[in-house]
Amino acid sequence: MGADAHNPGHMSPDAFRREGHRLIDWIADYWESLEERPVVGDTKPGDVLKALPTSAPESPGGEREWDDIVRDLDAVIAPNLTHWQSPRFFAYFPCNGSGPGVLGELVSAGLGVNGMLWSTSPAATELETRMLDWCADLHALPEAFKSTGAGGGVIQGTASEAAVCALVAARKRAGGDPRTLAVACSEQAHSSIAKAAMVAGLADGPEDATHIRLVRTGPEGAMDPVHLREQLRTIDGVRPAMVVGTLGTTSTGAFDRIDDIPRAIADAGLDRERVWVHIDAAWAGSAFVCPEHRGPMAGIEHADSVCINPHKWGLVTFDCDLFWVRDRRALTDALSITPEYLRNEATDAGAVIDYRDWQVPLGRRMRALKLWFVLRHYGAQGLRAHIRRGVELAAAFESWVRADERFEVPVDRSLGLVCFRLRAGDDASERLLRELNRRGRVLVSHTRVPVGEGRAETYLIRFAVGATLTERRHVVEAWDEIRAAADAVLG
Amino acid sequence: MGADAHNPGHMSPDAFRREGHRLIDWIADYWESLEERPVVGDTKPGDVLKALPTSAPESPGGEREWDDIVRDLDAVIAPNLTHWQSPRFFAYFPCNGSGPGVLGELVSAGLGVNGMLWSTSPAATELETRMLDWCADLHALPEAFKSTGAGGGVIQGTASEAAVCALVAARKRAGGDPRTLAVACSEQAHSSIAKAAMVAGLADGPEDATHIRLVRTGPEGAMDPVHLREQLRTIDGVRPAMVVGTLGTTSTGAFDRIDDIPRAIADAGLDRERVWVHIDAAWAGSAFVCPEHRGPMAGIEHADSVCINPHKWGLVTFDCDLFWVRDRRALTDALSITPEYLRNEATDAGAVIDYRDWQVPLGRRMRALKLWFVLRHYGAQGLRAHIRRGVELAAAFESWVRADERFEVPVDRSLGLVCFRLRAGDDASERLLRELNRRGRVLVSHTRVPVGEGRAETYLIRFAVGATLTERRHVVEAWDEIRAAADAVLG
Repeated sequence: MGADAHNPGHMSPDAFRREGHRLIDWIADYWESLEERPVVGDTKPGDVLKALPTSAPESPGGEREWDDIVRDLDAVIAPNLTHWQSPRFFAYFPCNGSGPGVLGELVSAGLGVNGMLWSTSPAATELETRMLDWCADLHALPEAFKSTGAGGGVIQGTASEAAVCALVAARKRAGGDPRTLAVACSEQAHSSIAKAAMVAGLADGPEDATHIRLVRTGPEGAMDPVHLREQLRTIDGVRPAMVVGTLGTTSTGAFDRIDDIPRAIADAGLDRERVWVHIDAAWAGSAFVCPEHRGPMAGIEHADSVCINPHKWGLVTFDCDLFWVRDRRALTDALSITPEYLRNEATDAGAVIDYRDWQVPLGRRMRALKLWFVLRHYGAQGLRAHIRRGVELAAAFESWVRADERFEVPVDRSLGLVCFRLRAGDDASERLLRELNRRGRVLVSHTRVPVGEGRAETYLIRFAVGATLTERRHVVEAWDEIRAAADAVLG
Repeated sequence: MGADAHNPGHMSPDAFRREGHRLIDWIADYWESLEERPVVGDTKPGDVLKALPTSAPESPGGEREWDDIVRDLDAVIAPNLTHWQSPRFFAYFPCNGSGPGVLGELVSAGLGVNGMLWSTSPAATELETRMLDWCADLHALPEAFKSTGAGGGVIQGTASEAAVCALVAARKRAGGDPRTLAVACSEQAHSSIAKAAMVAGLADGPEDATHIRLVRTGPEGAMDPVHLREQLRTIDGVRPAMVVGTLGTTSTGAFDRIDDIPRAIADAGLDRERVWVHIDAAWAGSAFVCPEHRGPMAGIEHADSVCINPHKWGLVTFDCDLFWVRDRRALTDALSITPEYLRNEATDAGAVIDYRDWQVPLGRRMRALKLWFVLRHYGAQGLRAHIRRGVELAAAFESWVRADERFEVPVDRSLGLVCFRLRAGDDASERLLRELNRRGRVLVSHTRVPVGEGRAETYLIRFAVGATLTERRHVVEAWDEIRAAADAVLG
C-alpha cells in the first residue's frame, strides 16, 4: 500500500494494481465456475487444517507470493467451501451477493475509514443515513422510521445484532432488573431472539421459559393471539419488555400478524409504553419492495423497531442488516457512552448522528457504500424484478412437487421458500435430504416444525430460491435431482 | 454477477471485471493521493446529505453508471472523509489497512460464504482456526490459548464485541443474577468495557459504580493494586464476575500489571474460578510480535481471555479482532443455541468448531482470508519491522517535543503513542489541537487523564504513529505543523 522506501514490506501500488486485477478476475472466474462445481465438497473435519502450514511464515512471501496464494485459493480453499453463491444453492436462506455489492465492499476496504463518529468520517455517516431513508421508502416503512423525524436507521452486521440492540433499548425503557424482564416471540422465531435474551442478561439459557416466552403458532404459522396474551402475563414478578413479531420465519417463512401484538399487550394489562415491539423481517422484508408482497406489513406502524437483511434476498453482499427505530433517543439512551477521547464539537452540539451510539461495537466500516452501489445499479425496478423472479421460480417448483404423488407440501409456500416432504414420512424425508446433499449437485436444508391443525412436529425439507445466479434451469435441475434421490430412497 | 439471460439486471462478468479493475486502480490512486490531501476536509453537518438524492433511483444505473459512481466517489465521498489511511493521520489509534488486507476482504466478499457452522463452509472455519493458532504463537501467547488444547481463538469484529463475549461467559461462570455481578477495570480502560457491562445487563449506565468498578491508576497508569483489591469487594450483594486488565490504554497506552490481578482476587477472598480475567490488548498487543515488547505480557498465563486487534496496528484491514479463550467450553456454554434448522452431523458428532457459538451474531463472513493474506505477505519479519518503525518514529517525535521548552511530555511514551501538551496549560493545549485540526494537514486527537504522582486531571494531545503509509518525513512534517500551530496559539 503506497510506495515507501523505508518499509519495503508494504505492497507497492503497482503490485496492488496487478494483483487486484488478478483477484477481480479470479472472482469472476469463480462465479462462472459455480455452474459446474458441486455446491458442497466432500470435506472431512481436519482436511483443510492438514493442508495448511502449522505456523506463520517467518519471511515475506517473496516474488511468487501471489501465484502461491492463488494456487492455494484454488487447491485448498475453494474445493472446501459450501458455495453460497452457487445457482444450485437452495439451503437456509440465500446469502446473495452481487457484483456491485462486492465492489462496494472493495471500495470500503480501500478507503479504510472508521465511521464510529460523524466527525471521524462525515461522508460515511451521512451516506448511511440517506441510504436507510431510501430503504425505508423502498420497503414502504412509515415515515416515523426515517431520520427526518424522531426515528432513523443504521446498518448492523446481522439481525442478531439488531435484536440485541432492540432488546437493550427495550430493557432500558422497561426499567428494572434484567431478570425481572422477558421477551416474547413465536416458537418459530429465529434463534437470535433467544440468544439476545441470553446476551442481555434476561435469560439463563435458551430453555429459560420464564424469560423467553415462546408463543404457540396456529395453522398458518402465526403466533396464536390467545397464547400470546397468555405469555405476556407477569409470572413470578417477570414481565415482558419486548415482543418480537417475525415476518417470514426461518423454518417455513410464516408471518406473525403484527396487529395482534398491541392488542395482546393491552389485553394483558401491560403499559404499551414499556413494551418494545420489534419486527424481524430479516429475510422476507426484502420482498416489501414489491407492493404485492406488503400484505404482512399491516400494523407495522405499531413497531418500535424493524430489521431487514438485504444480505439475504436483497443483493447486498454480506454483512448488511438494516435496523430502524421509531425513537432514536430510546436506542442511544441505552447504548451511548462518551469518553473524553471521543468528545468533539459536532457531537457536543447535537448536530450530527454518531452511529457508535446505535450499536454495540465502537468501530465500524463503511458498509453504506455497498448498499449505495447495489441501489444505483439495480434501481428499485431491478430489486423488484429479482424478488419477483425468485417467487415465480419457487411457485413453479411448488407446482411440480405438488404434482408428484410421492411428495407433499404441508405448509403453503412463502414467497421464495417451499417446504416439502415425502409422504413416506420423517425418516424417508431425512434420508432424502442426506442423499441429495451426498450427491452434492444441489444443496437444500431442513427443519422440524408443528404443522397443520394438529400441529404435529414434522420433518420438512426447505427449498429457498433467491441466490443471485439462480435461473429457471437450475430449479428444473434441482427438481430432477430431488426426484432421482427420491427414487434411490424409496427404492 | 454471472451471465443470466433472464435477469438482465445482474452485472455481467465482463462488466464486473472492467469495473473491478477500474476500482482497484481508483483505490491505488486514492492511496497515492493521500500524500497531498488534507487529513480532514471542511465538512459541515448536512453537506453530504445535500449532495445525495432524496430517494433511490427507480431505474437501473444504465450505461454510464460506473462513470457516475466514480465521479460521485471523487466529488461527494472522498472530500468528506477523514482519511484514516493518510500518512499524516496520528489521531486515536491507527486503523491501518494494507494492500494484502484489502485483497483479502475482496476475495472474501467475492466468495460470499457464511461460516456460521463448520458445515456451512469448512475452509472458512479451519482457516480461521489455523490463523488464530499462528497468531497465538506470533504474539507469544501461552499454548493454552491454542485450539490444540482446551482453548482457541476466533475473529470478532472489534474489541467491544470480544468484551461482550468475555463478559457473557464470565457471567455464566459466576452464576446468579446479572445485577448481582460487577466488572472491574482501570479508570483508563476502554469505554467498551462499560458498554459491555450495560449490554450484558450488569450495569444501568456508564456511571453505575456498583457494577462497573473503576480502579484508580498509579503514576505509571497501571491499576493501583490496593484500590483494585478494594474494588473487588462485595458491595450490597454485588460481586465481581470479571476483571479486565488493559495492556495499552486508549488514552496514554499505559499497561496494567496482570500479575496484580489474581493476587487481588485472592486477597479479596473471591473464588478465582468464578472471576474471569480478560486482557484487552487491542492496540498494544500487535507489538507482542517483537520479543523486546513482551514485558507487559508478564502474567498472561492468568488470563481467561485475551484480545488483540490487528486492524489497529497489525496491517489487517478493519474489521479484525483476535479473541482467544483458555477454555472454549466456557464460551460456547454461554453462547450456544442449536435450532433444528442448523443441526448437522459434523456438529452433532462434536468433531468440529462452529464459530457461531463463539460470538453474538449467527452469520459471519470469511475474515480469516485477509489475515492469511497479510501474514503471508509480510511474514513475521514484516510485522516486526512495521511495529519497530512505528516505535522508532514515535521515539524521535518524543525527543523533539521534549527538546522544545514550550512543550511537556507528562507521561512516558508508550510504544508508538506520545502524549504531550503545552506547558501553558489545558486551555492553550486545547486551542493548539483545534488550530492543528483546522489547518487539516495532520490529524491528532486528545484526552484528559490523571497525570503523575498528584493524578491531576490533565489535557493531553495524543500522537499515535502506526498508519501504514507513515514515513519519517510525515512525522517531521507533523512536528513542523505542531510548532507552527503553537506559534499561532501562543502568539
